[in-house]
Amino acid sequence: MSAASPSTAETVTAAVLVIGNEILSGRTQDLNLNYLAKGLAAAGVLLREARVIPDVPEAIISTVNELRNRYDYLFTTGGIGPTHDDITSECVSRAFGLKHTVHPDAHKAFLSYYQPGELNEARMRMAMTPEGAELIPNPISRAPGFRIANVFVMAGIPSVMQAMFDGIKGSLRGGPPVLSRTLVCAIPEGLLAKGLGDIQNAYPDLDIGSYPFTRRGTFGVALVVRGREAARLDRCRDAIADLIRGLGGSPVEE
Amino acid sequence: MSAASPSTAETVTAAVLVIGNEILSGRTQDLNLNYLAKGLAAAGVLLREARVIPDVPEAIISTVNELRNRYDYLFTTGGIGPTHDDITSECVSRAFGLKHTVHPDAHKAFLSYYQPGELNEARMRMAMTPEGAELIPNPISRAPGFRIANVFVMAGIPSVMQAMFDGIKGSLRGGPPVLSRTLVCAIPEGLLAKGLGDIQNAYPDLDIGSYPFTRRGTFGVALVVRGREAARLDRCRDAIADLIRGLGGSPVEE
Repeated sequence: MSAASPSTAETVTAAVLVIGNEILSGRTQDLNLNYLAKGLAAAGVLLREARVIPDVPEAIISTVNELRNRYDYLFTTGGIGPTHDDITSECVSRAFGLKHTVHPDAHKAFLSYYQPGELNEARMRMAMTPEGAELIPNPISRAPGFRIANVFVMAGIPSVMQAMFDGIKGSLRGGPPVLSRTLVCAIPEGLLAKGLGDIQNAYPDLDIGSYPFTRRGTFGVALVVRGREAARLDRCRDAIADLIRGLGGSPVEE
Repeated sequence: MSAASPSTAETVTAAVLVIGNEILSGRTQDLNLNYLAKGLAAAGVLLREARVIPDVPEAIISTVNELRNRYDYLFTTGGIGPTHDDITSECVSRAFGLKHTVHPDAHKAFLSYYQPGELNEARMRMAMTPEGAELIPNPISRAPGFRIANVFVMAGIPSVMQAMFDGIKGSLRGGPPVLSRTLVCAIPEGLLAKGLGDIQNAYPDLDIGSYPFTRRGTFGVALVVRGREAARLDRCRDAIADLIRGLGGSPVEE
């Protein structure tokens, strides 16, 4: 898919790293990747890869290092609370080879929030970051997230993660937002395939996806064009609409 | 987390590879990972990692090779239909260095399903697999999945993927199923953390997770113990229940 990898000066790439045994055990359905995927597309950042790994230090350290070196941005979710299985922050410090230390701003906020005697060792762990990190505010609960270099470390609870991401997304340096056009029809994919491939070849800078579905018992296919230039997307969508009509179908824009 | 990596003779590991631009663009919320995670746990297979990658040949080939060499099983979802963006099967053939060829059983099934003239080139692509692959039946639509060595290639549409996995899960060689015990309470994690860490240290063969949540406006924490020996899980759960009571809380089993 050429459009998944446009090589313009404006290409800014990202990976998402979901950290948590609960996702891999099936206990929890991840919702963070989808939220981040939409938010990054809107910010003009191309999400190239996502991974889900367990709460295992070696896995976290090596994956953080691999992904932060490969992409412009890395967003992690999960593992920043006070319990023994919350090891993301410490592992990110180790990945960077930085001292893991109490962040003065987090410490100050905790001192004003907790009553005397409540700020125990476990809670103090939530105030620790790699030295030099910038806090990501948590408007919902206590543990802040943080940014160190190109890595953003965020909570696993979706409502908290979303609030954190909404707070930082304005600071991301992205290209123009990724736009899309969607046509739905009832022509089987096997009949659309040849013409659609020809259109993809004619628009190598765009990304055309074909997604069959069943909705209220009725079969359909959604044809999605993604790219960054509205006029070019419109032309490609029109070509697909012509293809559908040529096969006796009725394209519906969604 | 020691329990995420038990090193017994019975340890069978797996990775899931979700292939598709639509997941990384945010258009589609992935549901396949969660279904596979639950099914693999029930089959006694430890899911160690999941990845989401785009419809890009180089990414598919290199990731398939990395994961199939690292884990006992690899399960892929997505990219086996008839359109230009369905490139998984061909890429798996390339990853294995095998000829990509028409599978005789798939061909026979297609010949009996399609009317003369309907079996065009695009549809024939769905009958192609790496040479020597074993088909995974698709009871819902046309494109079959397949197994080659330790790699299972399945559909992306959740209902189809689920039917395919249900058809093969009985053939997986796993250890005893992974069991769990869950206690819910309203004690803040910051107060549970020390005692919970001590219990984790006392049960290094089990995996204890702490998951805060908000349910109908009420704060709570779910404490989940995972492992393979029921009696040992029960003892660990009882220790956590004692911890909760000692902090003035009421543990509720879920």
